[in-house]
Amino acid sequence: MSDLLERGASGDRAPLARLLSLVERGGDDACTVSAAVHPLCGEAVNVGITGAPGAGKSTLTSALCRAIRAVGRSVAVLAIDPSSPFTGGAILGDRIRMSEHVLDDGVFIRSMATRGHLGGLAVAAPDAARVLDAAGFDHVIVETVGVGQVEVDVASATDTTVVVVNPGWGDAVQAAKAGLVEIADVFVVNKADRPGAADAVRDLTAMLSLRGASSWVPPVVETVATTGRGVDQLLEVLAEHRDHLVVSGELQRRRARRAEEEVRAVVATRLAERAEELCQGPVWDQQWAQVAAGSLDPWSAADAVLGAASLIDGPPR
Amino acid sequence: MSDLLERGASGDRAPLARLLSLVERGGDDACTVSAAVHPLCGEAVNVGITGAPGAGKSTLTSALCRAIRAVGRSVAVLAIDPSSPFTGGAILGDRIRMSEHVLDDGVFIRSMATRGHLGGLAVAAPDAARVLDAAGFDHVIVETVGVGQVEVDVASATDTTVVVVNPGWGDAVQAAKAGLVEIADVFVVNKADRPGAADAVRDLTAMLSLRGASSWVPPVVETVATTGRGVDQLLEVLAEHRDHLVVSGELQRRRARRAEEEVRAVVATRLAERAEELCQGPVWDQQWAQVAAGSLDPWSAADAVLGAASLIDGPPR
Repeated sequence: MSDLLERGASGDRAPLARLLSLVERGGDDACTVSAAVHPLCGEAVNVGITGAPGAGKSTLTSALCRAIRAVGRSVAVLAIDPSSPFTGGAILGDRIRMSEHVLDDGVFIRSMATRGHLGGLAVAAPDAARVLDAAGFDHVIVETVGVGQVEVDVASATDTTVVVVNPGWGDAVQAAKAGLVEIADVFVVNKADRPGAADAVRDLTAMLSLRGASSWVPPVVETVATTGRGVDQLLEVLAEHRDHLVVSGELQRRRARRAEEEVRAVVATRLAERAEELCQGPVWDQQWAQVAAGSLDPWSAADAVLGAASLIDGPPR
Repeated sequence: MSDLLERGASGDRAPLARLLSLVERGGDDACTVSAAVHPLCGEAVNVGITGAPGAGKSTLTSALCRAIRAVGRSVAVLAIDPSSPFTGGAILGDRIRMSEHVLDDGVFIRSMATRGHLGGLAVAAPDAARVLDAAGFDHVIVETVGVGQVEVDVASATDTTVVVVNPGWGDAVQAAKAGLVEIADVFVVNKADRPGAADAVRDLTAMLSLRGASSWVPPVVETVATTGRGVDQLLEVLAEHRDHLVVSGELQRRRARRAEEEVRAVVATRLAERAEELCQGPVWDQQWAQVAAGSLDPWSAADAVLGAASLIDGPPR
């Protein structure tokens, strides 16, 4: 295992990709990988990037990679693409934009999808980030495609959470609606060359002031990811936040809190795997067919399935 | 129970609100309500509305309510607000916009939040929609605040799914990224008085033509919800889709498919409730504290917790 990790860190992609596939697939192999990398990590600067579709997260991530490489450090990107509910396919467009880094050994980019697992990403994404950390990358960036609950959870399960918005009426309000003001350590107003950038900065600053007293007030950074404007400043702000986390002891507290959340997610995932086993076969088909026919309600059907597997107390209704 | 439902249908809000609270809370009471209403429903025109934050879903829903009332029919709206991850509070702005209907007995509006339940909305939203159906509302509209996986799942667990986008470069592409083209029965280009509306219609029409042969090609309707433009046409299109579902037998097929999905979601929810029970107490605290200290990985900790409750095979690792 440590050999695989070392080869990954030295620029050999195949073993690293294999470890990440195991993590993504879940189950016993993921467990083995997780156990092996857990003691090896904790050094990488761990950043989550989230924001509405179209905000320019991929372009910003690519620009950040460039800035990180310019100061001679390595970076791994985990791009979280929750699968489309029907095709199960990830969208490739964003990945293609990052093709400029494809020949650079100091940059590693990997997409991850949910694969339909309940809670799968909440478990797989932190595990995958630890694999990249253990492989020795200086920076690990977890980028999500949207602002659904899963994406927000994944992006905020990092040491520093960056929320990306654009100028435009209502964007700051929408960020508040999506709960993003509460999770942001750093706000980025990307596409800041468009009208309304100053207004967006002002609205966000006003909203952030409502978060209450704290030793860290999230800075609002203006960027134009397509030209690189503001990206060096963002990198500085990320370093400042990291320093703040270490000095204040908050890094330790956050990681402890996340440890609890993560074990909770694994417990839920294990039980969800059990649910998948239960939701097939003749007993299962018989139960849901009764619901479809209108002769049974979903709760009673579920209790019958769970009762048959001794997973709930008492006799099935 | 049927008395409560009847009183709700005749304009008495308190019993209806109480039934919905029980459904939202989950557990045994939700099960009882679900069992009681299940045989009483199936008549309402059941529509889901989803789209990115800011697309104007609430305003469109309000305009639809007005159009439905204008033809003398009643309507209930279920507004799904996944809770903010930290405060647990729902945003009130959208609800305030619907205040024009507050004195009309033919309109009932209710917000629902996740309450942090794993899979909670996937179970609670269809149950709540059935309560409103059983109470006799002619139309039940399920409106979601965003386009995360949960919102998409909830909106598409209806007979007719409406996806709302706005004019503007890339919006159609973003809709495709979020998997919305695949779930839409009807597309609405709202704010169609803004530049780019015709382009958006064209892009969407092109994308929809890629969905493959089908007896129903999703129409693209232009609306300006704030003025009511196009809303009557949308209502006609919704009626056409309902007719198509009935005549083609697709209504029956969809409901059978959803019955299976729904029992699956209840099974998952029941197991998630079990997980919550396990994730507390001294054994639990001991396990995650070891993970926080770096001496144990999350998977081994979870297996120890599950093994102690005899929920997985074999001894804990």
